[in-house]
Amino acid sequence: MPKISEKGMAMPLSPIRKLVPYADDAKKRGIKVYHLNIGQPDIKTPEVALQAIKNLNETVIEYSHSAGNASYRTRLAEYYKKMGINVASDEMLITTGGSEAITIAFMSTLNNGDEVIIPEPFYANYNGFAIQSGVVIKPITASITNDFALPPVEEFEKLITPKTKGIVICNPNNPTGYLYSKEELLKLAEIVKKHDLYLYSDEVYREFCYDGNTHFSAMNLPGLEQNVIMMDSVSKRYSMCGVRVGCLITKNKDVIATAMKFAQARLCPPSFGQIAAEAALETSKDYFDEVYNEYIARRDFMVKGLNEIPGVYCPNPKGAFYTVVKLPIDNSDKFAQWLLEEFDYNKQTVMVAPATGFYNTPGLGKDEIRVAYVLKTEDLKNAIEVLKHALEVYPGRTL
Amino acid sequence: MPKISEKGMAMPLSPIRKLVPYADDAKKRGIKVYHLNIGQPDIKTPEVALQAIKNLNETVIEYSHSAGNASYRTRLAEYYKKMGINVASDEMLITTGGSEAITIAFMSTLNNGDEVIIPEPFYANYNGFAIQSGVVIKPITASITNDFALPPVEEFEKLITPKTKGIVICNPNNPTGYLYSKEELLKLAEIVKKHDLYLYSDEVYREFCYDGNTHFSAMNLPGLEQNVIMMDSVSKRYSMCGVRVGCLITKNKDVIATAMKFAQARLCPPSFGQIAAEAALETSKDYFDEVYNEYIARRDFMVKGLNEIPGVYCPNPKGAFYTVVKLPIDNSDKFAQWLLEEFDYNKQTVMVAPATGFYNTPGLGKDEIRVAYVLKTEDLKNAIEVLKHALEVYPGRTL
Repeated sequence: MPKISEKGMAMPLSPIRKLVPYADDAKKRGIKVYHLNIGQPDIKTPEVALQAIKNLNETVIEYSHSAGNASYRTRLAEYYKKMGINVASDEMLITTGGSEAITIAFMSTLNNGDEVIIPEPFYANYNGFAIQSGVVIKPITASITNDFALPPVEEFEKLITPKTKGIVICNPNNPTGYLYSKEELLKLAEIVKKHDLYLYSDEVYREFCYDGNTHFSAMNLPGLEQNVIMMDSVSKRYSMCGVRVGCLITKNKDVIATAMKFAQARLCPPSFGQIAAEAALETSKDYFDEVYNEYIARRDFMVKGLNEIPGVYCPNPKGAFYTVVKLPIDNSDKFAQWLLEEFDYNKQTVMVAPATGFYNTPGLGKDEIRVAYVLKTEDLKNAIEVLKHALEVYPGRTL
Repeated sequence: MPKISEKGMAMPLSPIRKLVPYADDAKKRGIKVYHLNIGQPDIKTPEVALQAIKNLNETVIEYSHSAGNASYRTRLAEYYKKMGINVASDEMLITTGGSEAITIAFMSTLNNGDEVIIPEPFYANYNGFAIQSGVVIKPITASITNDFALPPVEEFEKLITPKTKGIVICNPNNPTGYLYSKEELLKLAEIVKKHDLYLYSDEVYREFCYDGNTHFSAMNLPGLEQNVIMMDSVSKRYSMCGVRVGCLITKNKDVIATAMKFAQARLCPPSFGQIAAEAALETSKDYFDEVYNEYIARRDFMVKGLNEIPGVYCPNPKGAFYTVVKLPIDNSDKFAQWLLEEFDYNKQTVMVAPATGFYNTPGLGKDEIRVAYVLKTEDLKNAIEVLKHALEVYPGRTL
């Protein structure tokens, strides 16, 4: 029997999805499972996007342009302009979700063995994308003690070797919910400039900034026009994760031309998704206001509820809809599995993502989980109640 | 300015798409361009698939299962059973087009520097997928003199080294339209078995077999259950290239488990596309009969028309909707560009794909082009007329 590949062996199981079979088993036993593990909002997709699909005129669902429909790119450029990001339609490539934007960005710019520095905990799938591209991730550990702020640039400097080619940030951050300030980004820009690195900026949660904080895009870092590659997605902005439409944006013409070669090889991004995404640009302000208020309410409820549980520390996230929570437990992987396999409270349990999968440094994240506040407050209330009771009886509790 | 990657530099421009800017310019000059270059059929997508999209019930377009919707996989397994291919729903992974099926198959099974043998001319994007995966393609040249039949297995044997890990076939073949017989495949199976290779079988044109010939799937090669990885797509079967839904199928459980890790990293295939693809399984026999008759008529018309042009040889393809045609020209890249840049016949011209991009061996394909007979007969008639006149005046003609 022929062997599987080294990359295939190295690929991690998704910390968000690997426990799904246990959740399925729990459901089969009649247990209600609250999904705090995955950033799948229960928020409705904007009606204007759904209507565009229902009113479909096409009779042949053709390949689109490899860079995405020109009409969509033109209007998307206008959208970014409104957000204060000045890009032209030929400085972007529509991708199959943000995932593909990241893999194409890595493949277009990084060689086998090249290193990228990423503050950890980080979006777990960066590990997979790095393995696919032959890239080595050098983690720089952020701490829950300051709510996962950007580590000092001196710490970045220490990690730089001749193989370092880039820094990856996710802002607002998944999994921590931390929102990098303009000042933090300007500090980071210095080191990017000094070592002529790429700055890969994952901004898929741009629209989710709370408490009067505003988002500062890496695209607006002065002097870094040739260094910054922004990755984006419509998944969260319009609660339509399944459409698989993202984009890669850069002012660097060599990178766009190279990315286009990868884009041509896979032919095109999904046509239906692009129709929905283009229509979604017409989403009313009311929709976003409602979503914003809903997330604020959920966040406040969850942060308060979790911090009331003895031994739990939950930072107050300023963006996105996740946070990494410290629990009084021995091992978050065991705990997450135990919740699904052995525990229930009034026939209910919770699925969480062990934070270990969001760290690259072995051993970190054992007493942390990532939670997403994508469920309605009533469900969050039940989920927190379940967690509280679980922590009272979990055999590996440390309190 | 930071550099682009070695892979990025090595990525070829798509021979099918690289001349698009010249075609756009020609159109701006008021010239009608007949697209023989791309396998984008003008055939209507089945109404049942479009209706499923128009009747959408979902209010939140969620992530699907990373392996694709269970309901779709279950029904797709039934479809394959009807086609004589016995697979279970957990032996398949729904992918974002056939393209992703190939990249996931390569990444799951091949290491940097591993070699795969592919009969050339071959689907040009295999080059790109191989570069992405760090895989080296060893071409084995098929000849237009026998309509691109499978080269003798002795020729394959000669190319086998300790690094050879697989053979890639596309059956029916894009770009040649050749349909491998059961006998040819059984011969190939011997060498796959003997050297314990993977056999990657791209069968996206399975339903397009003509003149009473039937398709024999690599999935049915006896004793190769652990070796065969089949790649498929709904793009051509239902003329819906833009939905981006394909699949990877194998009985090898290690490969499926590994492929699943790559699938989880990119989250899921497109939700709308899966809805359309599942509904398309209900497409009536009438639709296929009509499509079949249409393609037969187009093929017959095109083959006859091209062979009537002095110095042209066009094989009679037994499957798919392409063929590679020999022309009395010096350089197919120059010719294709000249057609768009400098030539028109009654304000019409033709876009063709130079065959050079379908060969891996440098220098081959200079007097060949790939044509797709995806246009209606009237358009094909005009396109052939244009080609005939072009070959009379092309400065690099060799006749």
